[in-house]
Amino acid sequence: MDALAYLETWAPRIERALDAALPKASEPPARLHAAMRHLVFPGGKRLRPALALAGAEAVGGQPEIALPAAVAVEMVHTYSLVHDDLPCMDDDALRRGRPTVHVAFDEATAVLAGDALLTAAFAALVADAGPGDSAQRLAAVRDLAHAAGAAGLVGGQVDDLGAAAGDAAQVESVHARKSAALIAVSIVAGARLAGAGEPVLARLAAAGRAAGIAFQIADDLLDADEDEGCSLVRVLGLDGARARAQALLAEALDELASLGAAGEPLRALLRYAVTRDR
Amino acid sequence: MDALAYLETWAPRIERALDAALPKASEPPARLHAAMRHLVFPGGKRLRPALALAGAEAVGGQPEIALPAAVAVEMVHTYSLVHDDLPCMDDDALRRGRPTVHVAFDEATAVLAGDALLTAAFAALVADAGPGDSAQRLAAVRDLAHAAGAAGLVGGQVDDLGAAAGDAAQVESVHARKSAALIAVSIVAGARLAGAGEPVLARLAAAGRAAGIAFQIADDLLDADEDEGCSLVRVLGLDGARARAQALLAEALDELASLGAAGEPLRALLRYAVTRDR
Repeated sequence: MDALAYLETWAPRIERALDAALPKASEPPARLHAAMRHLVFPGGKRLRPALALAGAEAVGGQPEIALPAAVAVEMVHTYSLVHDDLPCMDDDALRRGRPTVHVAFDEATAVLAGDALLTAAFAALVADAGPGDSAQRLAAVRDLAHAAGAAGLVGGQVDDLGAAAGDAAQVESVHARKSAALIAVSIVAGARLAGAGEPVLARLAAAGRAAGIAFQIADDLLDADEDEGCSLVRVLGLDGARARAQALLAEALDELASLGAAGEPLRALLRYAVTRDR
Repeated sequence: MDALAYLETWAPRIERALDAALPKASEPPARLHAAMRHLVFPGGKRLRPALALAGAEAVGGQPEIALPAAVAVEMVHTYSLVHDDLPCMDDDALRRGRPTVHVAFDEATAVLAGDALLTAAFAALVADAGPGDSAQRLAAVRDLAHAAGAAGLVGGQVDDLGAAAGDAAQVESVHARKSAALIAVSIVAGARLAGAGEPVLARLAAAGRAAGIAFQIADDLLDADEDEGCSLVRVLGLDGARARAQALLAEALDELASLGAAGEPLRALLRYAVTRDR
């Protein structure tokens, strides 16, 4: 299974679902809606939405059933980037080669666009829930709130901003919350919408956490010359960080081995996420 | 029924529920947790949580059943104040006589504390859902996301920041989204957790919207000398604004007349919200 082919195959459905879930830039308040869309289109690789679809597939579901989860996790990811780029945080003027939201609009609009994206993520996750899957949707809301909140993404960002050097365990704790929690919930929420039971969900979560930390180490390796923020490269060196990423990836793939052929898209995406060269 | 007595009676339960739903300031990341709690304790009148409890009571439920909704709406209210106070928005150094979150901590922490409170609101709303009420909880998540997002609170704030004078309809449109949407969803979410059906929920929502706009006009009347932001006092004058608030309150109470004695706490709270003198 070729991860890039999977990403390409599903990209059009993901783009359409994101577009449908976001308010139109032609409707008021148009400036807010345009700011919400600014970093969503064009987006990045759409790795998290693809993981949601592959999570559903891994437990025997149709990938499409996970589209509400796919949209939700991409919105949470995007909101976190919009807020991280703010002058009071990383103060970045460019993201993916384009002006960041606070540069293209203004700071207040960037804060509010991020707030609206985070809120829209929860709306997207519960939209069109059928009576039969209410309990799984609710559990997905709980999982997403946990991954995105003080115990996950936000707490990781706080510790990343305040990071002293730290040892390997401290760096991995930041990665686990700032990156891996959302990677894991992408897979888990997708699988939940496909009706997965708790034992397999626990395996998917563990695999997502391990692969998510490895994914962030891969990012650190690609940016090794930048030497900013929390990085395992600084603590373990290039070879040490590379070895740790491979060990975490192997751990993740091991968790997923029992899924058989249905799990191959998910395994391929995780391998790609950790071994990509950009 | 005395609204102040109702607020006082329920305050301890609401405080305990908020405390239990927020991460402890003694646990890491302690600075984030302290910032999340800074504006929650001590809070304001806890009007929105009380409306959630009174909403449950109005449809024949026990007030306690609405505590998850009460906590959620207070967290959304608090997050919106934390972000509104930021230097890039209203740039307020004081709120309720104490330093605002970005002054007591720093700007990045205030953005992130607001983000974490918004996320925690959704977690609180779905916490401990029983199997029997999943559909109503999901609907409450949908309602809260709608009230808090681009079509509600955030959109209202955008238009308030960008507000030219505007006519009465434009001012009321901002009030409807920035204030009344969250007032209405407080009542509706509380009633949902008590198992209310759609016809009565529609009445509660309509009453909440009308009373919520009147509530904001009452605020404008109390701050009439400040003359900032969107205000009906500027458009209609003091007497005109007062008459409009009374008309909206009467409309709200009329919607609720059929609830009988069970609806009296809710009616009392709405009367108090519009006629209070501070």
